[in-house]
Amino acid sequence: MRIITNPQVFQKTMEALREKGKQIGFVPTMGALHHGHLELMRRSKQENDVTAVSIFVNPTQFGPKEDFRRYPRPAARDQKLLIQAEVDFLLMPSVAAMYPAGTALFVDLNSEQDGLTQRYCGQTRPGHFRGVLTVCAKLFNIARPHRVYMGAKDYQQTVVIDRLIRELHLGIKMVRVPTVRESDGLALSSRNIYLSPADRRRARALSQTLQELQGELQRGKRNLKALLQDARRKLAHSVDKLDYLEAADPVTLEPLAKPQKHMVLLTACTVGKTRLIDNVIINLP
Amino acid sequence: MRIITNPQVFQKTMEALREKGKQIGFVPTMGALHHGHLELMRRSKQENDVTAVSIFVNPTQFGPKEDFRRYPRPAARDQKLLIQAEVDFLLMPSVAAMYPAGTALFVDLNSEQDGLTQRYCGQTRPGHFRGVLTVCAKLFNIARPHRVYMGAKDYQQTVVIDRLIRELHLGIKMVRVPTVRESDGLALSSRNIYLSPADRRRARALSQTLQELQGELQRGKRNLKALLQDARRKLAHSVDKLDYLEAADPVTLEPLAKPQKHMVLLTACTVGKTRLIDNVIINLP
Repeated sequence: MRIITNPQVFQKTMEALREKGKQIGFVPTMGALHHGHLELMRRSKQENDVTAVSIFVNPTQFGPKEDFRRYPRPAARDQKLLIQAEVDFLLMPSVAAMYPAGTALFVDLNSEQDGLTQRYCGQTRPGHFRGVLTVCAKLFNIARPHRVYMGAKDYQQTVVIDRLIRELHLGIKMVRVPTVRESDGLALSSRNIYLSPADRRRARALSQTLQELQGELQRGKRNLKALLQDARRKLAHSVDKLDYLEAADPVTLEPLAKPQKHMVLLTACTVGKTRLIDNVIINLP
Repeated sequence: MRIITNPQVFQKTMEALREKGKQIGFVPTMGALHHGHLELMRRSKQENDVTAVSIFVNPTQFGPKEDFRRYPRPAARDQKLLIQAEVDFLLMPSVAAMYPAGTALFVDLNSEQDGLTQRYCGQTRPGHFRGVLTVCAKLFNIARPHRVYMGAKDYQQTVVIDRLIRELHLGIKMVRVPTVRESDGLALSSRNIYLSPADRRRARALSQTLQELQGELQRGKRNLKALLQDARRKLAHSVDKLDYLEAADPVTLEPLAKPQKHMVLLTACTVGKTRLIDNVIINLP
Protein backbone atom coordinates (compact mmCIF):
# COMPACT_ATOMS: atom_id res chain seq x y z
CA MET A 1 0.00 0.00 0.00
CA ARG A 2 1.32 3.42 -0.96
CA ILE A 3 0.66 6.18 1.61
CA ILE A 4 0.41 9.70 0.20
CA THR A 5 0.00 12.85 2.30
CA ASN A 6 0.10 15.45 -0.49
CA PRO A 7 -3.28 15.85 -2.27
CA GLN A 8 -1.60 17.04 -5.50
CA VAL A 9 0.60 13.94 -5.62
CA PHE A 10 -2.41 11.74 -4.90
CA GLN A 11 -4.42 13.49 -7.64
CA LYS A 12 -1.63 13.03 -10.20
CA THR A 13 -1.25 9.37 -9.19
CA MET A 14 -4.98 8.67 -9.64
CA GLU A 15 -5.00 10.63 -12.92
CA ALA A 16 -2.16 8.49 -14.27
CA LEU A 17 -4.10 5.33 -13.35
CA ARG A 18 -7.25 6.67 -15.03
CA GLU A 19 -5.22 7.42 -18.16
CA LYS A 20 -4.12 3.77 -18.15
CA GLY A 21 -7.80 2.80 -18.17
CA LYS A 22 -7.87 1.59 -14.56
CA GLN A 23 -11.20 1.71 -12.72
CA ILE A 24 -10.77 3.47 -9.38
CA GLY A 25 -12.83 2.83 -6.24
CA PHE A 26 -12.55 5.36 -3.42
CA VAL A 27 -13.48 5.02 0.25
CA PRO A 28 -13.41 8.31 2.18
CA THR A 29 -13.09 7.73 5.94
CA MET A 30 -12.18 9.53 9.15
CA GLY A 31 -10.08 6.53 10.22
CA ALA A 32 -10.68 4.58 13.44
CA LEU A 33 -11.53 1.78 11.05
CA HIS A 34 -13.92 -1.04 11.92
CA HIS A 35 -15.49 -3.93 10.01
CA GLY A 36 -18.04 -1.57 8.50
CA HIS A 37 -15.23 0.30 6.77
CA LEU A 38 -13.53 -2.93 5.75
CA GLU A 39 -16.76 -4.03 4.08
CA LEU A 40 -16.64 -0.84 1.95
CA MET A 41 -13.10 -1.72 0.88
CA ARG A 42 -13.98 -5.34 0.15
CA ARG A 43 -16.81 -4.15 -2.10
CA SER A 44 -14.55 -1.61 -3.83
CA LYS A 45 -11.94 -4.29 -4.52
CA GLN A 46 -14.60 -6.50 -6.12
CA GLU A 47 -15.73 -3.75 -8.49
CA ASN A 48 -12.53 -1.82 -9.36
CA ASP A 49 -8.93 -2.29 -10.49
CA VAL A 50 -7.61 0.06 -7.82
CA THR A 51 -8.94 0.84 -4.35
CA ALA A 52 -7.93 4.08 -2.66
CA VAL A 53 -8.86 5.10 0.88
CA SER A 54 -8.61 8.46 2.57
CA ILE A 55 -8.25 9.04 6.30
CA PHE A 56 -9.03 12.62 7.20
CA VAL A 57 -10.74 13.82 10.37
CA ASN A 58 -12.46 16.83 8.82
CA PRO A 59 -12.70 19.75 11.26
CA THR A 60 -15.48 21.59 9.37
CA GLN A 61 -18.05 18.85 9.93
CA PHE A 62 -17.70 18.97 13.72
CA GLY A 63 -19.60 21.53 15.80
CA PRO A 64 -17.67 23.70 18.30
CA LYS A 65 -18.82 21.50 21.20
CA GLU A 66 -18.33 18.19 19.40
CA ASP A 67 -15.58 15.59 19.59
CA PHE A 68 -13.15 16.79 16.89
CA ARG A 69 -10.17 16.81 19.24
CA ARG A 70 -10.88 13.56 21.00
CA TYR A 71 -12.06 11.71 17.87
CA PRO A 72 -9.97 8.49 17.78
CA ARG A 73 -6.93 8.54 15.45
CA PRO A 74 -5.26 5.09 15.72
CA ALA A 75 -3.03 5.64 12.67
CA ALA A 76 -0.79 2.57 13.01
CA ARG A 77 -3.70 0.21 13.61
CA ASP A 78 -5.63 1.69 10.68
CA GLN A 79 -2.70 1.28 8.32
CA LYS A 80 -2.27 -2.34 9.37
CA LEU A 81 -5.94 -3.03 8.68
CA LEU A 82 -5.70 -1.36 5.26
CA ILE A 83 -2.65 -3.43 4.33
CA GLN A 84 -4.49 -6.60 5.41
CA ALA A 85 -7.47 -5.50 3.31
CA GLU A 86 -5.08 -5.12 0.34
CA VAL A 87 -5.94 -1.49 -0.23
CA ASP A 88 -3.70 0.04 -2.92
CA PHE A 89 -3.46 3.71 -1.90
CA LEU A 90 -4.01 5.70 1.28
CA LEU A 91 -4.41 9.47 1.28
CA MET A 92 -3.65 10.99 4.70
CA PRO A 93 -3.60 14.77 4.21
CA SER A 94 -3.14 17.48 6.81
CA VAL A 95 -5.87 20.05 7.49
CA ALA A 96 -3.70 22.74 5.86
CA ALA A 97 -3.31 20.61 2.72
CA MET A 98 -7.06 20.06 2.46
CA TYR A 99 -7.92 23.73 3.15
CA PRO A 100 -5.03 25.52 1.40
CA ALA A 101 -6.76 28.90 1.24
CA GLY A 102 -8.61 28.58 4.56
CA THR A 103 -12.12 27.42 5.27
CA ALA A 104 -14.03 30.30 3.64
CA LEU A 105 -15.08 28.36 0.53
CA PHE A 106 -17.84 25.85 1.13
CA VAL A 107 -20.51 23.75 -0.56
CA ASP A 108 -24.01 23.62 0.93
CA LEU A 109 -27.70 23.15 0.17
CA ASN A 110 -29.90 26.25 0.31
CA SER A 111 -32.20 25.41 3.22
CA GLU A 112 -34.99 27.63 1.89
CA GLN A 113 -35.08 25.49 -1.24
CA ASP A 114 -34.41 22.12 0.33
CA GLY A 115 -34.58 21.05 3.97
CA LEU A 116 -32.43 17.95 3.45
CA THR A 117 -29.42 19.23 5.39
CA GLN A 118 -31.53 20.89 8.10
CA ARG A 119 -33.49 17.81 9.17
CA TYR A 120 -32.54 14.92 11.50
CA CYS A 121 -28.78 15.08 12.09
CA GLY A 122 -28.72 18.52 10.43
CA GLN A 123 -31.00 19.90 13.13
CA THR A 124 -28.90 18.57 15.99
CA ARG A 125 -25.61 19.32 14.25
CA PRO A 126 -25.96 22.69 12.48
CA GLY A 127 -23.29 23.09 9.79
CA HIS A 128 -22.43 19.37 9.86
CA PHE A 129 -23.57 18.62 6.31
CA ARG A 130 -21.98 21.81 4.98
CA GLY A 131 -18.70 20.40 6.29
CA VAL A 132 -19.42 16.97 4.79
CA LEU A 133 -20.39 18.43 1.39
CA THR A 134 -17.31 20.64 1.33
CA VAL A 135 -14.80 17.96 2.25
CA CYS A 136 -16.35 15.40 -0.09
CA ALA A 137 -16.26 17.89 -3.00
CA LYS A 138 -12.55 18.32 -2.27
CA LEU A 139 -11.80 14.61 -1.79
CA PHE A 140 -13.76 13.54 -4.87
CA ASN A 141 -11.89 16.09 -6.99
CA ILE A 142 -8.57 14.93 -5.58
CA ALA A 143 -9.29 11.23 -6.15
CA ARG A 144 -11.55 11.50 -9.24
CA PRO A 145 -12.69 7.94 -8.74
CA HIS A 146 -15.18 6.00 -10.82
CA ARG A 147 -17.03 4.83 -7.71
CA VAL A 148 -17.21 5.92 -4.07
CA TYR A 149 -18.27 3.59 -1.28
CA MET A 150 -20.23 4.85 1.71
CA GLY A 151 -21.89 3.05 4.60
CA ALA A 152 -25.68 2.94 4.81
CA LYS A 153 -25.33 3.62 8.56
CA ASP A 154 -24.89 7.28 7.67
CA TYR A 155 -28.03 7.19 5.55
CA GLN A 156 -28.70 10.91 5.47
CA GLN A 157 -25.07 11.50 4.52
CA THR A 158 -25.40 9.16 1.54
CA VAL A 159 -28.47 11.07 0.32
CA VAL A 160 -26.64 14.40 0.70
CA ILE A 161 -23.59 13.05 -1.18
CA ASP A 162 -25.78 11.64 -3.93
CA ARG A 163 -27.08 15.17 -4.43
CA LEU A 164 -23.54 16.58 -4.44
CA ILE A 165 -22.40 14.12 -7.10
CA ARG A 166 -25.40 14.81 -9.31
CA GLU A 167 -25.41 18.60 -8.96
CA LEU A 168 -21.66 19.14 -9.30
CA HIS A 169 -21.59 16.70 -12.24
CA LEU A 170 -18.82 14.73 -10.59
CA GLY A 171 -19.44 11.75 -12.85
CA ILE A 172 -19.02 9.32 -9.94
CA LYS A 173 -21.23 6.39 -8.94
CA MET A 174 -22.01 6.30 -5.21
CA VAL A 175 -22.36 2.76 -3.82
CA ARG A 176 -24.31 2.53 -0.55
CA VAL A 177 -23.07 -0.53 1.36
CA PRO A 178 -25.35 -2.15 3.98
CA THR A 179 -24.62 -1.45 7.65
CA VAL A 180 -22.43 -3.96 9.46
CA ARG A 181 -23.66 -4.82 12.98
CA GLU A 182 -22.46 -6.41 16.19
CA SER A 183 -24.13 -9.72 17.05
CA ASP A 184 -26.67 -7.91 19.26
CA GLY A 185 -27.62 -5.53 16.43
CA LEU A 186 -25.60 -2.42 17.36
CA ALA A 187 -24.43 -0.68 14.17
CA LEU A 188 -20.63 -0.51 13.97
CA SER A 189 -19.29 3.01 14.52
CA SER A 190 -15.93 4.53 15.36
CA ARG A 191 -17.68 6.23 18.27
CA ASN A 192 -18.74 2.92 19.92
CA ILE A 193 -15.38 2.81 21.72
CA TYR A 194 -16.54 5.80 23.77
CA LEU A 195 -19.26 3.62 25.39
CA SER A 196 -18.81 2.27 28.93
CA PRO A 197 -19.86 -1.40 29.33
CA ALA A 198 -23.22 -0.30 30.81
CA ASP A 199 -23.80 2.22 28.01
CA ARG A 200 -22.80 -0.42 25.46
CA ARG A 201 -25.67 -2.61 26.70
CA ARG A 202 -28.14 0.29 26.62
CA ALA A 203 -27.00 1.20 23.07
CA ARG A 204 -28.77 -1.93 21.80
CA ALA A 205 -32.02 0.01 22.15
CA LEU A 206 -31.50 1.87 18.85
CA SER A 207 -31.37 -1.16 16.57
CA GLN A 208 -33.92 -3.04 18.69
CA THR A 209 -36.43 -0.20 18.40
CA LEU A 210 -35.92 0.05 14.63
CA GLN A 211 -36.28 -3.71 14.25
CA GLU A 212 -39.49 -3.80 16.27
CA LEU A 213 -40.96 -0.94 14.25
CA GLN A 214 -39.95 -2.67 11.04
CA GLY A 215 -41.64 -5.85 12.24
CA GLU A 216 -44.88 -4.05 13.06
CA LEU A 217 -44.95 -2.26 9.71
CA GLN A 218 -44.24 -5.51 7.86
CA ARG A 219 -47.02 -7.23 9.80
CA GLY A 220 -49.32 -4.62 8.24
CA LYS A 221 -49.80 -2.07 11.02
CA ARG A 222 -50.72 1.25 9.38
CA ASN A 223 -50.92 3.83 12.14
CA LEU A 224 -47.40 5.17 11.63
CA LYS A 225 -47.83 8.19 13.86
CA ALA A 226 -48.92 6.13 16.89
CA LEU A 227 -46.27 3.48 16.21
CA LEU A 228 -43.55 6.14 16.14
CA GLN A 229 -44.86 7.86 19.26
CA ASP A 230 -44.93 4.58 21.15
CA ALA A 231 -41.43 3.63 19.93
CA ARG A 232 -40.06 7.08 20.80
CA ARG A 233 -41.43 6.79 24.33
CA LYS A 234 -39.78 3.39 24.83
CA LEU A 235 -36.49 4.41 23.23
CA ALA A 236 -36.27 7.64 25.25
CA HIS A 237 -36.55 5.46 28.35
CA SER A 238 -33.47 3.38 27.41
CA VAL A 239 -31.14 6.15 26.24
CA ASP A 240 -30.05 9.45 27.79
CA LYS A 241 -31.43 11.65 25.04
CA LEU A 242 -33.54 10.86 22.01
CA ASP A 243 -32.65 13.25 19.17
CA TYR A 244 -35.14 11.90 16.67
CA LEU A 245 -36.92 8.79 15.50
CA GLU A 246 -38.64 9.34 12.17
CA ALA A 247 -39.95 7.57 9.11
CA ALA A 248 -38.93 9.18 5.81
CA ASP A 249 -38.98 8.76 2.08
CA PRO A 250 -35.69 6.98 1.21
CA VAL A 251 -34.90 9.31 -1.73
CA THR A 252 -35.98 12.78 -0.56
CA LEU A 253 -35.87 12.08 3.22
CA GLU A 254 -39.17 13.98 3.55
CA PRO A 255 -40.83 12.79 6.80
CA LEU A 256 -43.78 10.44 6.27
CA ALA A 257 -47.18 10.71 7.95
CA LYS A 258 -48.27 7.23 6.82
CA PRO A 259 -46.48 4.09 5.63
CA GLN A 260 -45.44 3.71 1.99
CA LYS A 261 -43.89 0.86 0.01
CA HIS A 262 -40.28 2.09 0.33
CA MET A 263 -39.30 3.93 3.49
CA VAL A 264 -36.43 4.45 5.86
CA LEU A 265 -36.61 4.65 9.64
CA LEU A 266 -33.96 6.96 11.09
CA THR A 267 -32.86 7.54 14.66
CA ALA A 268 -30.21 9.36 16.67
CA CYS A 269 -29.73 9.12 20.43
CA THR A 270 -27.19 10.05 23.04
CA VAL A 271 -26.04 7.23 25.33
CA GLY A 272 -23.73 8.42 28.08
CA LYS A 273 -21.88 11.21 26.31
CA THR A 274 -21.92 9.45 22.94
CA ARG A 275 -24.22 10.32 20.07
CA LEU A 276 -25.22 7.24 18.08
CA ILE A 277 -27.24 6.94 14.86
CA ASP A 278 -28.94 4.06 13.11
CA ASN A 279 -31.50 3.39 10.41
CA VAL A 280 -33.32 0.61 8.62
CA ILE A 281 -34.61 0.53 5.05
CA ILE A 282 -38.06 -1.01 4.72
CA ASN A 283 -39.63 -2.39 1.57
CA LEU A 284 -43.22 -3.36 2.29
CA PRO A 285 -44.73 -6.16 0.17
CA MET B 1 -16.58 21.81 -34.45
CA ARG B 2 -18.69 19.33 -32.53
CA ILE B 3 -21.65 20.81 -30.66
CA ILE B 4 -22.78 18.87 -27.59
CA THR B 5 -25.82 19.76 -25.48
CA ASN B 6 -25.67 16.87 -22.97
CA PRO B 7 -23.16 17.47 -20.13
CA GLN B 8 -22.64 13.72 -19.59
CA VAL B 9 -21.74 13.21 -23.27
CA PHE B 10 -19.42 16.22 -23.14
CA GLN B 11 -17.79 14.88 -19.94
CA LYS B 12 -17.22 11.44 -21.48
CA THR B 13 -15.82 13.04 -24.66
CA MET B 14 -13.33 15.15 -22.70
CA GLU B 15 -12.42 12.18 -20.51
CA ALA B 16 -11.64 10.09 -23.58
CA LEU B 17 -9.37 12.88 -24.89
CA ARG B 18 -7.61 13.16 -21.53
CA GLU B 19 -7.04 9.40 -21.56
CA LYS B 20 -5.37 9.80 -24.95
CA GLY B 21 -3.00 12.30 -23.33
CA LYS B 22 -4.53 15.37 -25.00
CA GLN B 23 -4.17 18.71 -23.20
CA ILE B 24 -7.57 20.40 -22.93
CA GLY B 25 -8.18 24.15 -22.83
CA PHE B 26 -11.63 25.31 -21.75
CA VAL B 27 -13.30 28.70 -22.25
CA PRO B 28 -16.55 29.11 -20.29
CA THR B 29 -18.74 31.88 -21.77
CA MET B 30 -22.29 33.16 -21.74
CA GLY B 31 -22.18 33.57 -25.54
CA ALA B 32 -22.74 36.88 -27.35
CA LEU B 33 -19.10 36.46 -28.30
CA HIS B 34 -16.80 39.37 -29.08
CA HIS B 35 -13.10 39.77 -29.80
CA GLY B 36 -12.34 39.49 -26.09
CA HIS B 37 -13.73 35.95 -26.10
CA LEU B 38 -11.94 35.12 -29.34
CA GLU B 39 -8.68 36.17 -27.72
CA LEU B 40 -9.30 33.58 -24.97
CA MET B 41 -9.80 30.90 -27.60
CA ARG B 42 -6.73 31.96 -29.57
CA ARG B 43 -4.67 31.67 -26.40
CA SER B 44 -6.17 28.28 -25.55
CA LYS B 45 -5.39 26.98 -29.03
CA GLN B 46 -1.74 28.05 -28.61
CA GLU B 47 -1.37 26.18 -25.33
CA ASN B 48 -3.51 23.02 -25.73
CA ASP B 49 -4.26 20.15 -28.10
CA VAL B 50 -8.00 20.62 -27.82
CA THR B 51 -10.04 23.77 -27.18
CA ALA B 52 -13.56 23.45 -25.80
CA VAL B 53 -15.97 26.34 -25.26
CA SER B 54 -19.22 26.44 -23.30
CA ILE B 55 -22.08 28.83 -23.96
CA PHE B 56 -24.46 28.92 -21.01
CA VAL B 57 -26.36 31.93 -19.74
CA ASN B 58 -26.39 30.96 -16.09
CA PRO B 59 -29.58 32.05 -14.32
CA THR B 60 -28.17 31.78 -10.78
CA GLN B 61 -25.61 34.57 -11.29
CA PHE B 62 -28.25 37.13 -12.29
CA GLY B 63 -30.20 39.07 -9.67
CA PRO B 64 -34.02 39.13 -9.85
CA LYS B 65 -34.00 42.61 -11.41
CA GLU B 66 -31.08 41.95 -13.75
CA ASP B 67 -30.96 41.19 -17.48
CA PHE B 68 -31.13 37.37 -17.52
CA ARG B 69 -34.08 37.31 -19.94
CA ARG B 70 -32.86 40.00 -22.29
CA TYR B 71 -29.20 38.92 -22.18
CA PRO B 72 -28.20 38.54 -25.88
CA ARG B 73 -28.23 34.96 -27.23
CA PRO B 74 -27.10 35.17 -30.89
CA ALA B 75 -26.57 31.39 -31.22
CA ALA B 76 -26.01 31.17 -34.99
CA ARG B 77 -23.57 34.08 -35.04
CA ASP B 78 -21.68 32.65 -32.02
CA GLN B 79 -21.34 29.24 -33.66
CA LYS B 80 -20.02 30.82 -36.87
CA LEU B 81 -17.40 32.73 -34.88
CA LEU B 82 -16.35 29.57 -33.02
CA ILE B 83 -15.96 27.64 -36.26
CA GLN B 84 -13.86 30.48 -37.70
CA ALA B 85 -11.75 30.40 -34.52
CA GLU B 86 -11.26 26.64 -35.09
CA VAL B 87 -12.67 25.68 -31.72
CA ASP B 88 -12.99 21.89 -31.41
CA PHE B 89 -15.96 21.42 -29.07
CA LEU B 90 -18.91 23.53 -27.98
CA LEU B 91 -21.02 22.65 -24.93
CA MET B 92 -24.47 24.27 -25.07
CA PRO B 93 -26.47 22.78 -22.19
CA SER B 94 -29.99 23.63 -21.05
CA VAL B 95 -30.65 25.03 -17.58
CA ALA B 96 -32.30 21.72 -16.61
CA ALA B 97 -29.20 19.78 -17.72
CA MET B 98 -26.91 22.03 -15.68
CA TYR B 99 -29.15 22.00 -12.58
CA PRO B 100 -30.51 18.42 -12.69
CA ALA B 101 -31.64 18.36 -9.04
CA GLY B 102 -32.64 22.04 -8.86
CA THR B 103 -30.70 25.03 -7.67
CA ALA B 104 -30.53 24.13 -3.96
CA LEU B 105 -26.87 23.01 -4.01
CA PHE B 106 -24.39 25.87 -4.25
CA VAL B 107 -20.77 26.85 -3.74
CA ASP B 108 -19.94 30.10 -1.97
CA LEU B 109 -17.42 31.90 0.20
CA ASN B 110 -18.33 32.45 3.85
CA SER B 111 -18.55 36.24 4.02
CA GLU B 112 -17.75 36.30 7.74
CA GLN B 113 -14.42 34.67 6.94
CA ASP B 114 -13.67 36.41 3.67
CA GLY B 115 -15.23 39.53 2.16
CA LEU B 116 -14.04 38.74 -1.38
CA THR B 117 -17.50 37.99 -2.80
CA GLN B 118 -19.21 40.79 -0.84
CA ARG B 119 -17.08 43.66 -2.12
CA TYR B 120 -17.23 45.66 -5.38
CA CYS B 121 -19.53 43.75 -7.77
CA GLY B 122 -20.60 41.49 -4.89
CA GLN B 123 -22.03 44.47 -3.02
CA THR B 124 -24.06 45.71 -6.00
CA ARG B 125 -24.99 42.22 -7.12
CA PRO B 126 -25.74 40.11 -4.02
CA GLY B 127 -25.58 36.40 -4.82
CA HIS B 128 -23.77 37.01 -8.12
CA PHE B 129 -20.52 35.31 -7.15
CA ARG B 130 -22.38 32.43 -5.51
CA GLY B 131 -23.93 31.81 -8.93
CA VAL B 132 -20.56 32.14 -10.65
CA LEU B 133 -18.83 29.78 -8.19
CA THR B 134 -21.60 27.22 -8.48
CA VAL B 135 -21.79 27.18 -12.28
CA CYS B 136 -17.99 27.13 -12.65
CA ALA B 137 -17.72 24.20 -10.22
CA LYS B 138 -20.20 22.36 -12.42
CA LEU B 139 -18.63 23.36 -15.74
CA PHE B 140 -15.09 22.58 -14.60
CA ASN B 141 -16.18 19.13 -13.42
CA ILE B 142 -17.97 18.51 -16.71
CA ALA B 143 -15.02 19.61 -18.86
CA ARG B 144 -12.16 18.62 -16.53
CA PRO B 145 -9.75 20.73 -18.56
CA HIS B 146 -6.05 21.26 -17.96
CA ARG B 147 -6.43 25.04 -18.35
CA VAL B 148 -9.32 27.50 -18.24
CA TYR B 149 -9.17 30.89 -19.93
CA MET B 150 -10.88 33.91 -18.42
CA GLY B 151 -10.82 37.57 -19.36
CA ALA B 152 -9.06 40.05 -17.07
CA LYS B 153 -12.01 42.43 -17.65
CA ASP B 154 -13.89 40.44 -15.01
CA TYR B 155 -10.97 40.78 -12.62
CA GLN B 156 -12.86 40.03 -9.41
CA GLN B 157 -14.36 36.96 -11.06
CA THR B 158 -10.90 35.64 -11.92
CA VAL B 159 -9.81 36.04 -8.28
CA VAL B 160 -12.94 34.23 -7.07
CA ILE B 161 -12.41 31.40 -9.57
CA ASP B 162 -8.77 31.11 -8.62
CA ARG B 163 -9.95 30.48 -5.06
CA LEU B 164 -12.51 27.92 -6.25
CA ILE B 165 -9.89 25.98 -8.20
CA ARG B 166 -7.48 25.96 -5.30
CA GLU B 167 -9.98 25.12 -2.55
CA LEU B 168 -11.89 22.43 -4.45
CA HIS B 169 -8.57 20.94 -5.62
CA LEU B 170 -9.76 21.06 -9.23
CA GLY B 171 -6.22 20.63 -10.53
CA ILE B 172 -6.78 23.26 -13.25
CA LYS B 173 -4.58 26.19 -14.22
CA MET B 174 -6.51 29.44 -14.65
CA VAL B 175 -5.09 31.72 -17.36
CA ARG B 176 -6.08 35.38 -17.03
CA VAL B 177 -6.03 36.93 -20.51
CA PRO B 178 -5.60 40.73 -20.87
CA THR B 179 -8.71 42.79 -21.61
CA VAL B 180 -9.38 43.56 -25.29
CA ARG B 181 -10.50 47.16 -25.92
CA GLU B 182 -12.11 49.27 -28.61
CA SER B 183 -9.84 51.88 -30.19
CA ASP B 184 -11.11 54.54 -27.73
CA GLY B 185 -10.31 52.31 -24.75
CA LEU B 186 -13.76 50.86 -23.92
CA ALA B 187 -13.37 47.29 -22.66
CA LEU B 188 -15.18 44.79 -24.89
CA SER B 189 -18.31 43.37 -23.27
CA SER B 190 -21.39 41.52 -24.47
CA ARG B 191 -23.41 44.24 -22.76
CA ASN B 192 -21.92 47.08 -24.90
CA ILE B 193 -24.61 46.42 -27.53
CA TYR B 194 -27.18 47.77 -25.04
CA LEU B 195 -25.55 51.22 -25.28
CA SER B 196 -27.18 53.99 -27.36
CA PRO B 197 -24.69 56.00 -29.51
CA ALA B 198 -24.69 58.80 -26.90
CA ASP B 199 -24.19 56.34 -24.02
CA ARG B 200 -21.47 54.60 -26.04
CA ARG B 201 -19.52 57.89 -26.12
CA ARG B 202 -20.02 58.47 -22.40
CA ALA B 203 -18.88 54.88 -21.64
CA ARG B 204 -15.32 55.92 -22.54
CA ALA B 205 -15.16 57.58 -19.14
CA LEU B 206 -14.47 54.28 -17.34
CA SER B 207 -11.25 53.41 -19.15
CA GLN B 208 -10.21 57.05 -19.39
CA THR B 209 -10.54 57.52 -15.64
CA LEU B 210 -8.57 54.34 -14.94
CA GLN B 211 -5.86 55.38 -17.41
CA GLU B 212 -5.53 58.84 -15.89
CA LEU B 213 -5.27 57.39 -12.38
CA GLN B 214 -2.69 54.89 -13.58
CA GLY B 215 -0.69 57.74 -15.13
CA GLU B 216 -0.75 59.79 -11.94
CA LEU B 217 0.32 56.81 -9.82
CA GLN B 218 3.10 55.96 -12.24
CA ARG B 219 4.27 59.58 -12.18
CA GLY B 220 4.76 59.06 -8.46
CA LYS B 221 1.69 60.66 -6.89
CA ARG B 222 1.18 59.05 -3.50
CA ASN B 223 -2.04 60.45 -2.07
CA LEU B 224 -4.21 57.56 -3.20
CA LYS B 225 -7.26 58.60 -1.19
CA ALA B 226 -7.37 62.10 -2.71
CA LEU B 227 -6.62 60.75 -6.20
CA LEU B 228 -9.51 58.29 -5.93
CA GLN B 229 -11.89 60.91 -4.54
CA ASP B 230 -11.06 63.28 -7.36
CA ALA B 231 -11.40 60.55 -9.99
CA ARG B 232 -14.72 59.38 -8.50
CA ARG B 233 -16.10 62.91 -8.66
CA LYS B 234 -15.15 63.28 -12.33
CA LEU B 235 -16.35 59.80 -13.29
CA ALA B 236 -19.69 60.23 -11.49
CA HIS B 237 -20.19 63.36 -13.62
CA SER B 238 -19.82 61.39 -16.91
CA VAL B 239 -21.90 58.30 -16.07
CA ASP B 240 -25.40 57.86 -14.67
CA LYS B 241 -24.32 55.99 -11.57
CA LEU B 242 -20.92 55.26 -10.12
CA ASP B 243 -21.00 51.92 -8.29
CA TYR B 244 -17.42 51.94 -7.13
CA LEU B 245 -13.92 53.05 -8.04
CA GLU B 246 -11.32 51.45 -5.78
CA ALA B 247 -7.68 50.49 -5.56
CA ALA B 248 -7.09 46.95 -4.29
CA ASP B 249 -4.46 44.32 -3.72
CA PRO B 250 -4.42 42.22 -6.92
CA VAL B 251 -4.35 38.89 -5.04
CA THR B 252 -6.68 39.39 -2.05
CA LEU B 253 -8.69 42.33 -3.48
CA GLU B 254 -8.45 44.01 -0.07
CA PRO B 255 -8.98 47.78 -0.63
CA LEU B 256 -5.80 49.85 -0.38
CA ALA B 257 -5.37 53.08 1.60
CA LYS B 258 -2.04 53.90 -0.03
CA PRO B 259 -0.21 52.87 -3.21
CA GLN B 260 1.80 49.64 -3.33
CA LYS B 261 4.01 48.06 -5.99
CA HIS B 262 1.31 45.76 -7.44
CA MET B 263 -2.26 46.99 -7.40
CA VAL B 264 -5.47 46.86 -9.38
CA LEU B 265 -7.88 49.72 -9.96
CA LEU B 266 -11.47 48.51 -10.26
CA THR B 267 -14.59 50.35 -11.34
CA ALA B 268 -18.25 49.71 -12.15
CA CYS B 269 -20.71 52.30 -13.48
CA THR B 270 -24.15 52.44 -14.99
CA VAL B 271 -24.43 54.25 -18.31
CA GLY B 272 -28.01 54.57 -19.53
CA LYS B 273 -29.47 51.31 -18.24
CA THR B 274 -26.28 49.34 -18.74
CA ARG B 275 -23.88 48.32 -16.00
CA LEU B 276 -20.27 48.36 -17.18
CA ILE B 277 -17.08 47.27 -15.39
CA ASP B 278 -13.42 47.84 -16.06
CA ASN B 279 -10.06 47.58 -14.32
CA VAL B 280 -6.37 48.15 -14.81
CA ILE B 281 -3.45 46.32 -13.25
CA ILE B 282 -0.63 48.60 -12.12
CA ASN B 283 2.94 47.60 -11.43
CA LEU B 284 4.82 50.58 -10.04
CA PRO B 285 8.58 50.78 -10.69
